[in-house]
Amino acid sequence: MSTVSDKTGVAQINAGRLWGSLMSLAEIGATPKGGVCRLALTDLDGQGRDLFVKWAKEAGCEVRVDEIGNIFARRAGLDNSLPPVMTGSHIDTQPTGGKFDGNFGVLAGLEVVRSLNDQGIQTEAPIEVVVWTNEEGSRFVPVMMGSGVFVSAFPLASTLQQADVDGKTVGDELRRIGYAGTEPAASFPIKAYFEAHIEQGPILEASNTVIGAVTGALGQRWYDVVISGMEAHAGPTPMELRKDALLAAARLIAQVNDIALEHAPHARSTVGWIECYPNSRNVIPGTVKLSVDFRAADDAVLSAMDSALKAAGERLQKEGRVGVDVKQVVYFPPQPFDDGLIDAVRTAGKDLGLSTMDIVSGAGHDAVYLARVAPTAMIFIPCKDGISHNEIEDALPEHIEAGCNVLLRAMLAQAGVP
Amino acid sequence: MSTVSDKTGVAQINAGRLWGSLMSLAEIGATPKGGVCRLALTDLDGQGRDLFVKWAKEAGCEVRVDEIGNIFARRAGLDNSLPPVMTGSHIDTQPTGGKFDGNFGVLAGLEVVRSLNDQGIQTEAPIEVVVWTNEEGSRFVPVMMGSGVFVSAFPLASTLQQADVDGKTVGDELRRIGYAGTEPAASFPIKAYFEAHIEQGPILEASNTVIGAVTGALGQRWYDVVISGMEAHAGPTPMELRKDALLAAARLIAQVNDIALEHAPHARSTVGWIECYPNSRNVIPGTVKLSVDFRAADDAVLSAMDSALKAAGERLQKEGRVGVDVKQVVYFPPQPFDDGLIDAVRTAGKDLGLSTMDIVSGAGHDAVYLARVAPTAMIFIPCKDGISHNEIEDALPEHIEAGCNVLLRAMLAQAGVP
Repeated sequence: MSTVSDKTGVAQINAGRLWGSLMSLAEIGATPKGGVCRLALTDLDGQGRDLFVKWAKEAGCEVRVDEIGNIFARRAGLDNSLPPVMTGSHIDTQPTGGKFDGNFGVLAGLEVVRSLNDQGIQTEAPIEVVVWTNEEGSRFVPVMMGSGVFVSAFPLASTLQQADVDGKTVGDELRRIGYAGTEPAASFPIKAYFEAHIEQGPILEASNTVIGAVTGALGQRWYDVVISGMEAHAGPTPMELRKDALLAAARLIAQVNDIALEHAPHARSTVGWIECYPNSRNVIPGTVKLSVDFRAADDAVLSAMDSALKAAGERLQKEGRVGVDVKQVVYFPPQPFDDGLIDAVRTAGKDLGLSTMDIVSGAGHDAVYLARVAPTAMIFIPCKDGISHNEIEDALPEHIEAGCNVLLRAMLAQAGVP
Repeated sequence: MSTVSDKTGVAQINAGRLWGSLMSLAEIGATPKGGVCRLALTDLDGQGRDLFVKWAKEAGCEVRVDEIGNIFARRAGLDNSLPPVMTGSHIDTQPTGGKFDGNFGVLAGLEVVRSLNDQGIQTEAPIEVVVWTNEEGSRFVPVMMGSGVFVSAFPLASTLQQADVDGKTVGDELRRIGYAGTEPAASFPIKAYFEAHIEQGPILEASNTVIGAVTGALGQRWYDVVISGMEAHAGPTPMELRKDALLAAARLIAQVNDIALEHAPHARSTVGWIECYPNSRNVIPGTVKLSVDFRAADDAVLSAMDSALKAAGERLQKEGRVGVDVKQVVYFPPQPFDDGLIDAVRTAGKDLGLSTMDIVSGAGHDAVYLARVAPTAMIFIPCKDGISHNEIEDALPEHIEAGCNVLLRAMLAQAGVP
């Protein structure tokens, strides 16, 4: 258990220790298929938090918990009046989640602290590792709850009242597992925020690249669409008298796809959810509900996609067979990250001799909220077949190591070493 | 309560009595929205059967029940060695069914018997009114169970073992409600079978016609289709790397529609059922299952539609993004009815001065099975907006009366009056 220096003489992290910590944390809520089920604010989430806090204290950190349960573990700097250089992510998972999503970002931060300890490196500014509450949103909505409250995207009081399907609230569950903290759930000055994360997509793997310097996050517009036709018996109803809501939905789904292709290569569109009523094989569908998810790096493109969707709905309606109701339910503007920090990630990757490319995050992350209050960047590493939110989510030990080494270098450059 | 004769001096039915019987039967399982929920072999079905049997016996009929629960009520003829002239339908309903589907055919038959009694008319051949077990198939599959066993489309023993979602079997439920009869569930000689029914489609209403002389039933091919892509996170996955099963399904649904239009106007196609996995708004769908329902009057057309569906599936698969599995699960050949009996219906309609047109049944009916063992025809009357299998199913009293008068005339012509 020793921290080594690379050929340039700069500290490197202890890859075996990081991997071991990831595997230890993954035992809490481990599933038979090799994944993790550790929903936010359950007993298992409490056990995971306890393990992180124990490790952080053993590494000499001071631990604080805020009113929404975010955990901050601070390694003192030489000048503790300076704002900290922060890193972190989340340790809650999807119901069929993997070992790396979120957990890698938290434990990479812990490994940075441990490695600095091993080498006796003091930084000018403090180093802070954060665990954000309920990023996944599987048990309680909204997603990215802890970081969202931290940046005032959501009010604390109503967020604490959010309930799961059994009626248990965020506030009660935080108290129950011992993480209803007393620190204000509000942002404070942060010199830089980094978040290391598996890509959750196929781009790095497909291009055989180890490090993604994330330049920002795609904007998102989500919609609920309701198509209203008239249910009727499939046998006796002639084609020309039908008001088939599923046929109209099928046409809209094809157009939703075309809308992203018209803004290739950086726009994306998905219909991931569909419900058909009455959903009986010999009844012409009367009502179909579906979701539309648009993403784009440029807000003007996102607006153009929005207009195109509404126009597609109106065209369908004008054909006279169905009603089409399109309602936007989520809007995140595109979020660019900090140029200086993005460059710090690029530089660290190149200095370590790692293949590095710029990449845009298609998914939401706590970092996307943090970018509203602090200079922010993310470090992506590949994951197997681009798969996450799945028990078969996987990442290579050498990519875990590389990502953490990039994090260490980027944080040291920001925190300053005398 | 008197049976009148029309201006030609021929017996007419008692419209008020028929309507009253329909409304009385509809009280058993009545729903707040004005429909009926009387699933096959429930207590309510038992009560409905008891009421029919009571009425039939009061009308002087001899009642028999066969091993699958079909009820036969016979009014003796002058020569009881002659095969009967039969009519009937079913009294089980969909969970949100109406007052007329099936019930009209049974009670029109009963009204024919009552009217003949009123007028003291003796027929050469016996008249028989039948209630077929479980036509709807809502609680137990297959649909058209009683008539299907009667014509040997299904074996009796395994059909009695069919279970509902609670594991209760057809055999046990027949015994429980007292309708596990002893007559062999097998066809016997039948001179003619008529079935009066609401159209369950919009054609008669749209053309302002009172009587449909049903020339036969469309053939049907039903399919289960499974489209296999790869689920992936909607945000980070570029459009060109996706294997979106729902997008492929949307393209197939549009093609299924086109396949029927290519064989207009008598071919029909419907995708009524769809399931999407994992059906989450920010996950690209990995698997979609859907049903396809093809109907056509000509078996060669149905075969061409079958080939076109398989070709569409193969084209989608060749694009390389998804696998497409197409499995036929139901095949009914087109079933023409008996020319002589169809003409008897046309003639009765015209003699009564009723607007009459030929029509094809798009739906399955017990008559479609009966046509395999006996000369068969059906009499359709309009239903409001073509709607059935719905609590708002409705029919006009004057159409109910007209349909029953046509039935009376057609049956008398077949049974013979000295």
